[in-house]
Amino acid sequence: MSGEDAPAQQQNAVDQKQETKPAEEPKTESPKTESAPAGAAEAAATPAATTEKVPEEEAFTYRALVLTGYGGYDKVKLQVKKGKPALKAGEVLVRVKACGLNFADLMARQGLYDRLPSPPVTPGMECSGVVEAVGEEVTDRKVGDKVMVLNRFGLWQEVAVVPANHTFLIPEGMSFEEAAALPVNYITAYMMLFDFGNLRPSQSVLVHAAAGGVGIAATQLCKTVNDVTVFGTASASKHETITQGGVTHPIDYRTKDYVEEVRKISPKGLDIILDPLGGSDTHKAYNLLKPMGKLITYGAANMLAGQKKNLLAVAKNWYHQFSIHTLSLIQGNKSVCGFHLGYLDGETELIAQAMSTILDLYKQGKIKPRIDSTWHLEQVGDAMRKMQERNNIGKVILTTEPMPEEEKKEEPKKEDKKEDKKKEDKKKEDKKKDDGKKEEKKDDKKKEEPKKEEKKEEEKKEEAKKEEK
Amino acid sequence: MSGEDAPAQQQNAVDQKQETKPAEEPKTESPKTESAPAGAAEAAATPAATTEKVPEEEAFTYRALVLTGYGGYDKVKLQVKKGKPALKAGEVLVRVKACGLNFADLMARQGLYDRLPSPPVTPGMECSGVVEAVGEEVTDRKVGDKVMVLNRFGLWQEVAVVPANHTFLIPEGMSFEEAAALPVNYITAYMMLFDFGNLRPSQSVLVHAAAGGVGIAATQLCKTVNDVTVFGTASASKHETITQGGVTHPIDYRTKDYVEEVRKISPKGLDIILDPLGGSDTHKAYNLLKPMGKLITYGAANMLAGQKKNLLAVAKNWYHQFSIHTLSLIQGNKSVCGFHLGYLDGETELIAQAMSTILDLYKQGKIKPRIDSTWHLEQVGDAMRKMQERNNIGKVILTTEPMPEEEKKEEPKKEDKKEDKKKEDKKKEDKKKDDGKKEEKKDDKKKEEPKKEEKKEEEKKEEAKKEEK
Repeated sequence: MSGEDAPAQQQNAVDQKQETKPAEEPKTESPKTESAPAGAAEAAATPAATTEKVPEEEAFTYRALVLTGYGGYDKVKLQVKKGKPALKAGEVLVRVKACGLNFADLMARQGLYDRLPSPPVTPGMECSGVVEAVGEEVTDRKVGDKVMVLNRFGLWQEVAVVPANHTFLIPEGMSFEEAAALPVNYITAYMMLFDFGNLRPSQSVLVHAAAGGVGIAATQLCKTVNDVTVFGTASASKHETITQGGVTHPIDYRTKDYVEEVRKISPKGLDIILDPLGGSDTHKAYNLLKPMGKLITYGAANMLAGQKKNLLAVAKNWYHQFSIHTLSLIQGNKSVCGFHLGYLDGETELIAQAMSTILDLYKQGKIKPRIDSTWHLEQVGDAMRKMQERNNIGKVILTTEPMPEEEKKEEPKKEDKKEDKKKEDKKKEDKKKDDGKKEEKKDDKKKEEPKKEEKKEEEKKEEAKKEEK
Repeated sequence: MSGEDAPAQQQNAVDQKQETKPAEEPKTESPKTESAPAGAAEAAATPAATTEKVPEEEAFTYRALVLTGYGGYDKVKLQVKKGKPALKAGEVLVRVKACGLNFADLMARQGLYDRLPSPPVTPGMECSGVVEAVGEEVTDRKVGDKVMVLNRFGLWQEVAVVPANHTFLIPEGMSFEEAAALPVNYITAYMMLFDFGNLRPSQSVLVHAAAGGVGIAATQLCKTVNDVTVFGTASASKHETITQGGVTHPIDYRTKDYVEEVRKISPKGLDIILDPLGGSDTHKAYNLLKPMGKLITYGAANMLAGQKKNLLAVAKNWYHQFSIHTLSLIQGNKSVCGFHLGYLDGETELIAQAMSTILDLYKQGKIKPRIDSTWHLEQVGDAMRKMQERNNIGKVILTTEPMPEEEKKEEPKKEDKKEDKKKEDKKKEDKKKDDGKKEEKKDDKKKEEPKKEEKKEEEKKEEAKKEEK
């Protein structure tokens, strides 16, 4: 996963940039084409669709999502790449089945994640698939192996070339969707809790965004240790699910001050706090630590306000960025750690060790990725929106499976529409409640702002859908 | 060890302040009196020495070291207290046999340690002794128990009243001196390495001041884990000893840049760094960490330059004080922790757990406190000097045993004089070498300055000794 390991096809493949405009009829005879959804251009060709006789290398085409510039959901476009990527020694070519969405992908789209090279570039840090070819010197992978892949970027496409040691064999019984949901969230949660956090029996942990991918993974991993108390923040509608998942004390961060809620139950504070928020929430977390407590910060979700880079949110996050003096750490007997898997380039051994333990836990039935929803590549914009607006419970997945024509273009592949409608109504209620409150808790509610900002857009779409029916 | 637990006799005992001037003949008939050494007033009475009939409570006297004001070594004076301290529920009265010296005691003497109440006050965070009385509600200690004691302060005296849960039974075969050397250094090293550090097999650790009390404890504890590489800084004359003690790579910080030396052997950096120095050394440590590395800072020894508070050194330390932003931690995947046992007041359970493991390791023969030298209470000034000038290898201990009259007043109770002389010569050589060097490494050498400053005094004393013979 080092810089040198950037997917080979970035260089090898001929980028055709065959974007079709939404209303335009695709020129190729692909049976899979349909009018493009808002926010994502669609496939223009599949390997089977090329009719002229061309050398095999050139005839090889595949669909890839490409970030074409920083900005909103529509900046990630579906393109067709031509030419079979060459394999270097130690690499494998994977036919991708499913891809995971991560918060870093959302940050990257806005230009807030420096591990993704400048556009145009294919994002994607994790996927699952089948090994289709192996390069020289690859001894532990063979054609046909089902694998999950972890890479710095470049996995949101039908074909990916990666170093063999960035792949992990999928255990018996694990679906491709689960396999695409596992690497980033579980390795992140595992290393935070068990390497930096040194989690031990009877300790207490605060998991923010407990219904998110890392949140669910962290909760499950906490439950592998005896008698661990998990405080989990999430909006009220998700409490039932996260409680079933292992959260001891769910806290609705929208209507309550989570610091107060934790203190009511754990007056002395907490042993471990996982902080994906950044800004002023990191300060709160630090003050909530017990002696010998560990604060592990792993993101700056508070920076993400709205579809496009929100300079105010970014500035606010910087302004409130937590900075700590050693004297304070000494007098408090505290630990502050930073984690981001994207910066663990080249630490293949550390990652392999963590993955090995995680897969053992999976085989023992102690952990299981929870899939929130699965979307076609064409729907990547909506998939990102769902995650960014925190409407997911668990992992948001992309599938490379072709999208059936009859399927409504803006709907997720699998999802209960009624559920969605109910949530929408709930959100409106919540909004009313929130509006009635004083603005005292501004800082706490930064996470909510994106939702409010895009409310109108959301409502318009909702109405549009109703009209369609 | 909370504030409320301050030794009861501070309030109960009548402070007699019977300091005698160095040349003056003591007025009481104590058989133990002798002319006071420079830097410490001596005992004026012992319980047996009172001839008049007085109630038992009043007849009870004991010697206590008292910090009379902030400053040099002579600020710690030996006084006689009168009156048997009362026991509250949960407390025990310990007849003290030996006391440990710690760096915090040296800081405290200069007014640099806020856990010690204002003078006059008896310092001392650890001791060993025998339980002489138990208060109400004490069920797990009885008269005659040999115990080691950990307290916020107040243990450098012949009699100490402490909460029973601040005492730990001394295991079979452990001397009082070892028992007085164990609590602070081993709990500190243990919690840093195994709680914050999460030390695991095949990792690498940098131990500064590897010949000091914490350094030796940390080295021994590292060796209880398979295949751990220990880098240890110490002056060259101590290398043989620390290597025998388990240091894999000794580094002479006086003549070499320890960062360069570590990089030569571990180009990627280190897993754990224990930093007692503070200031610019903390910055160096941070940069020396591997991904997932942990920096544990536990002091500001760099602040201690000379006998009395050195405002320049303190200011320099503050100026260079390490401060870290979360973004840097995230991008580096690093952890920064602060530890100081003195601030772990009230965490009796955590401490008891650590102590239990440490005593198990002792019983298994895996750890053993190394005593550098033992001094009488009258010699506390010289004992502190030895530690502050880093002439010790292992723990500096005070004994409450009366000082035989024939014993030379300025010499430690047990110590090889020739050894000392050799070291003295060695120091002179080192000094010459050092002087010849350029001042490039000023920051690295702050620790050396006290030695140079007091060189003349040292030399004068050395000459005085020669004349005496």
